[in-house]
Amino acid sequence: MAIPCPPFIGSEKLAMEAAAPSPPVFLTQDELKKIAAYKAVEFVQSGMVLGLGTGSTAKHAVDRIAELLRHGKLTNIVGIPTSKKTHQQAVSLGIPLSDLDSHPVVDLAIDGADEVDPDLNLVKGRGGSLLREKMIESATKKFIVIVDETKLVSRVGATGAMPVEVVPFCWKFTQDRLQGMFGYAGCAAKLRRDAGGEPFVTDNKNYIVDLFFEKDIGDLKVASDAILRLAGVVEHGMFLDMATTVIVAGELGVTIKNK
Amino acid sequence: MAIPCPPFIGSEKLAMEAAAPSPPVFLTQDELKKIAAYKAVEFVQSGMVLGLGTGSTAKHAVDRIAELLRHGKLTNIVGIPTSKKTHQQAVSLGIPLSDLDSHPVVDLAIDGADEVDPDLNLVKGRGGSLLREKMIESATKKFIVIVDETKLVSRVGATGAMPVEVVPFCWKFTQDRLQGMFGYAGCAAKLRRDAGGEPFVTDNKNYIVDLFFEKDIGDLKVASDAILRLAGVVEHGMFLDMATTVIVAGELGVTIKNK
Repeated sequence: MAIPCPPFIGSEKLAMEAAAPSPPVFLTQDELKKIAAYKAVEFVQSGMVLGLGTGSTAKHAVDRIAELLRHGKLTNIVGIPTSKKTHQQAVSLGIPLSDLDSHPVVDLAIDGADEVDPDLNLVKGRGGSLLREKMIESATKKFIVIVDETKLVSRVGATGAMPVEVVPFCWKFTQDRLQGMFGYAGCAAKLRRDAGGEPFVTDNKNYIVDLFFEKDIGDLKVASDAILRLAGVVEHGMFLDMATTVIVAGELGVTIKNK
Repeated sequence: MAIPCPPFIGSEKLAMEAAAPSPPVFLTQDELKKIAAYKAVEFVQSGMVLGLGTGSTAKHAVDRIAELLRHGKLTNIVGIPTSKKTHQQAVSLGIPLSDLDSHPVVDLAIDGADEVDPDLNLVKGRGGSLLREKMIESATKKFIVIVDETKLVSRVGATGAMPVEVVPFCWKFTQDRLQGMFGYAGCAAKLRRDAGGEPFVTDNKNYIVDLFFEKDIGDLKVASDAILRLAGVVEHGMFLDMATTVIVAGELGVTIKNK
């Protein structure tokens, strides 16, 4: 399935856009993520307030923004990090930072996703970040999602968990109610734990219950409201009607999907 | 407006139920709360799993339950406290306690409210507790609300704040979005602070934004969903369609309203 493309990624000109024939090269998943990330950063303009995403794909975008700032190709950028981890990364790279309290309107956010469905609805949070991302990405004028092609799914939950952030108080009760709520979709709800077997703790000191669906859960907005109405739930990982653009990097090139 | 009634409250026979003529006595608000609380405890039966409410009115109910346990008039009760404060009170009174994880179905919950509207929808949380109460009171078969007559209102927010529990992260952003959401009702949103001027912190380590409405906010379910959809909101203080019985103590007697 590989098409001829140069192995080097990271130049101003995207590797996947170069059409010069060369020996077939299989790109790694990380290289595909980087291609999508670099493409997204082409939409960044000097003076923007930028939502900085979290995760292995978004990390490449943050790196790239820092590189362009260093080279003077971007100026006057204010970054709003979507997690403590991204905050640390951005600080270490010297990107000027702020927060939603000071900058309640974000011009552009760039972030990865765990799943993208045909309507550009997302599942996020498998890495542990979803609430701050959702706050920032609901405040942005434009939200570019960057993924490799393995993230495209036919339905929410097709490739793994849909995470729900819950308060630690009586988490088991909340977990059981979530599982019961989606019994019709063969749901298994499971508290996320760290390597030591302790509950995984989010940036907001909450827990995460991962929902695994055997079947389609139906109308996503109905499901979203039902989850949010459950006292004990803080937020969930379905990002509905939020992405304005999805950039997909695959072996056959970069695809841009607009809402 | 006072009707003749004996000043002593706390006997097995409720003061307000005694019809014997006696000199007019004005009851204090706390006495009215106690009357409602004692009336509610009449619905408690041995063997029940009980949701124990929080606040100045619910406190009387918890005291009364402990008294009946001590006297052997109630046995085999399991209490599920709705706050750390009530947990401490119940422990000090020797009421056997558990939680929702071990007892996911509650037989009866008794709690106060800050407001009760004509449809028995409630506002709760002005004292700082709402999330754990909502979790427990959404898991109960019967939910008795106990109030003095000053809590009856024509609309949500008529007498004060409708509290919203929010994550501390970018609380100002969330506060501003909440205020904007209810601009049509003349909403003022204000972070709750403690006596020292620091943000008030809930049992779940969150903050509270109090919403003050000048006008009716309209359909409460629509308002509820809109608030819950806002990333950054954990829960709000409107308890809709939850109360099965409201016991109101007033100068003219006790009124019981059933859903």
